[in-house]
Amino acid sequence: MKPSIPKGTRDLGPIDMQKRQYIFDTIKRNFQLFGYMPIETPAMENLETLTGKYGDEGDKLIFKILNSGDYFSFFNISSDELDEIKRIDEIQKDRINKYLLAKDILKPEKHIKEISEKALRYDLTVPFARFVVMNQHNITFPFKRYQIQPVWRADRPQKGRYREFYQCDADVIGSDSLVNELELIAMMDKSFSELNIPVVLKINNRKILAGIAEVINEPDKIIDITVAIDKIDKVGLDGVNQELRAKGLSDTAINIIQPLLTNSESNHQKIDFLKTFLSSSNIGLKGIEELEFLFNNIYVLNLSGKTHYELDITLARGLNYYTGTIFEAKANAGTFTPSILGGGRYDDLTGIFGLKGMSGVGISFGIDRIFDVMNELNLYPESVNKASTTKVLFANFGLTEQTYCLGLAAQLRNHGINTEVYPDAAKMKKQFEYADKKQIPFVCIVGSDEITKQQYSLKNMSSGEQKVLTLEEMIQIVNA
Amino acid sequence: MKPSIPKGTRDLGPIDMQKRQYIFDTIKRNFQLFGYMPIETPAMENLETLTGKYGDEGDKLIFKILNSGDYFSFFNISSDELDEIKRIDEIQKDRINKYLLAKDILKPEKHIKEISEKALRYDLTVPFARFVVMNQHNITFPFKRYQIQPVWRADRPQKGRYREFYQCDADVIGSDSLVNELELIAMMDKSFSELNIPVVLKINNRKILAGIAEVINEPDKIIDITVAIDKIDKVGLDGVNQELRAKGLSDTAINIIQPLLTNSESNHQKIDFLKTFLSSSNIGLKGIEELEFLFNNIYVLNLSGKTHYELDITLARGLNYYTGTIFEAKANAGTFTPSILGGGRYDDLTGIFGLKGMSGVGISFGIDRIFDVMNELNLYPESVNKASTTKVLFANFGLTEQTYCLGLAAQLRNHGINTEVYPDAAKMKKQFEYADKKQIPFVCIVGSDEITKQQYSLKNMSSGEQKVLTLEEMIQIVNA
Repeated sequence: MKPSIPKGTRDLGPIDMQKRQYIFDTIKRNFQLFGYMPIETPAMENLETLTGKYGDEGDKLIFKILNSGDYFSFFNISSDELDEIKRIDEIQKDRINKYLLAKDILKPEKHIKEISEKALRYDLTVPFARFVVMNQHNITFPFKRYQIQPVWRADRPQKGRYREFYQCDADVIGSDSLVNELELIAMMDKSFSELNIPVVLKINNRKILAGIAEVINEPDKIIDITVAIDKIDKVGLDGVNQELRAKGLSDTAINIIQPLLTNSESNHQKIDFLKTFLSSSNIGLKGIEELEFLFNNIYVLNLSGKTHYELDITLARGLNYYTGTIFEAKANAGTFTPSILGGGRYDDLTGIFGLKGMSGVGISFGIDRIFDVMNELNLYPESVNKASTTKVLFANFGLTEQTYCLGLAAQLRNHGINTEVYPDAAKMKKQFEYADKKQIPFVCIVGSDEITKQQYSLKNMSSGEQKVLTLEEMIQIVNA
Repeated sequence: MKPSIPKGTRDLGPIDMQKRQYIFDTIKRNFQLFGYMPIETPAMENLETLTGKYGDEGDKLIFKILNSGDYFSFFNISSDELDEIKRIDEIQKDRINKYLLAKDILKPEKHIKEISEKALRYDLTVPFARFVVMNQHNITFPFKRYQIQPVWRADRPQKGRYREFYQCDADVIGSDSLVNELELIAMMDKSFSELNIPVVLKINNRKILAGIAEVINEPDKIIDITVAIDKIDKVGLDGVNQELRAKGLSDTAINIIQPLLTNSESNHQKIDFLKTFLSSSNIGLKGIEELEFLFNNIYVLNLSGKTHYELDITLARGLNYYTGTIFEAKANAGTFTPSILGGGRYDDLTGIFGLKGMSGVGISFGIDRIFDVMNELNLYPESVNKASTTKVLFANFGLTEQTYCLGLAAQLRNHGINTEVYPDAAKMKKQFEYADKKQIPFVCIVGSDEITKQQYSLKNMSSGEQKVLTLEEMIQIVNA
């Protein structure tokens, strides 16, 4: 058989793995610098834990796992009947079909539980909520956790969109203080500046969107309005207006909100504008108060200066559970400006599992997009862009030399030097090609002369220079 | 709803995560020290990639993923018929059942492809073989890779056995040199000695088992003999003999191999004994030659001295693909002596995917058992046994102080100090409890006086001592 992998999935080789490890390590270090601690949840969750949490579209994208054993048992027909009949006429078949339909056997949604009770994690947020509720008596609140694990979605695969991808989330739950938002802003800034990614961080507040719905007298249409406005980057102002009209907003209402969709003043000017615009909406004014607190305090955070902060009234974030501050970071890689982080505050995430009154706020780094941006801008340190991390390869001249080299390799390793001994006494050309392809910087040549003198030839693979050295000298040069 | 997780799975909280991270980091560092580089493969493989690779029992334990969309379409019955019929009598039902059976609809194995084409990774070995074959033109051989990822098995859950667990494998493929075995022995020794786990490493060779089958004139029963001998630790000598008899071995044959099953001499004495015992079997003698090479060369590896090496003729390793050296490490934790590593050489792992002649050898660390042993013997450094890695918590006295503390926290973080600002101006008792439960070593108290003087009270949570310090002094003390 010719092997293949499922569409929308991929293998990661050593270079990609090192690059991703570099991104994860940088973000993890910053998570812990701000007091976030790691957790992991199982790849499989009970299907009922996930169903209904991601909207109808999301439900369809959940990968379900087949129950073990006899998943056809719901047909309820004994296997003794197996040997009896072999043929059936067309009329009979027709009646059978009708019977099956009457028994609902052909309506899979009625039988899904009998076929599948488990599913693959769709995101890290719902499992986190489930974790908090199940472990609430062992958790110290406010609980700051980070989680870096793959998720799976049965989306149509396309460039840059996979069916298996990593999410990288940090959330704090059990505190409604805006200090959490400020600390998250500082953590994003520090992470992106260490990764050298230029970023625009857009900030808004769901209460402002609720206020807008109130002001135009359409409080029930808040979700429709949010969803429409969220698309402004993709479909433009006309597209948004068209969708608002389609959702039943009057021309008057649409006219009222036009200034919001086109406003490009400074953050503080926008806040002043909103204060007037939303003066009749309590929830809207509360949203402004929260935003103003953030923008007034950003200066104390000692930020890198590399991140651009922007109050973006058109930022809506699709997810329904957000209730306060919302974040989105876009990378600035020339013409390539993907969204590489999203997040926000939710007042009732754990409510779905029975734990009320737990406000939380979190962010999610888009690792795959960050990986793409870093590749595009070539932002990796040289050391993570190599086929291997081996520093020294001992060439193999045969049994005696190989045995001797195994001992030398052990000594280099005891000095923390990544070392290989070529396993076969192959032609020198082949052994040097191996070092070359794996970008190993030094090849050490140990023949019988070298063993007698206890001095070894070390070849620098990039300069071509070759030196005869004692073991101690070799360790110094390689570690330099 | 009351949330739960699927049986056989578990959540990992911060302390367990740190402990596991410590184990992974130690092993990863050693993998790279010996030239092994990381890869990752998707959690989902095509079902046909996995089926038939793990034996009939294994096949049943593979978690299958439901196809997206209409997985009932193989019934081939149009939905127009849906509204027609509502009732059906018993006689009719009987005929229908027979029809369904005749159509094979009730034989799930005939329809599995129409329901499921993907499955969850069952181990890391088969995906590795698949990876090598698919990427053979981009790989430099001998290819040394490591892989640390979860696998899933629909096994009956029990204490210490999970349905989701991590495997941690290192393999080198494309070289039949025994240097690879020697390097793996050194790598295991270094990893376990750094983890402080006392270990017995048992070594054998499948060719010796094949030789034994030849010597007793039962070459076709090599697998039966291997499987039986493999159980000696569990069922004892009598149990093994009983199984050999059940598999059709004569009493004469069983008598001949008794000395092998009870031999407790030194490694070199065992080798001498085998040379005589297997003198009539070429493959047996080849196995002895390989083992002798390993035991003669172990001394050059500069080992820690903490690992005990043992030629164990009864070591068989269940898996069919091994053809040469086999390894198993058992931890020595008093009465608790679980197997924590297994591995061996296979001459044709990639043959199943069409790439012949690729000899390889690898080992797999049993992370969950290692975790259990390290817990049992309390082998973790103090730093990974804490609820958090935060070093300093700034207490929160209200808006002004909190803003000031955010700035101080930023400065500590710029010195690499993990720092939190308590997000709410809660009662001091509550804030100190938070620090206590999270085992944060220092709490910094900043009121209006401290802000004026730019000197801050730092409380050492274990000694109870409180000092008034400048920022620089604080950084020095915390970093000490």
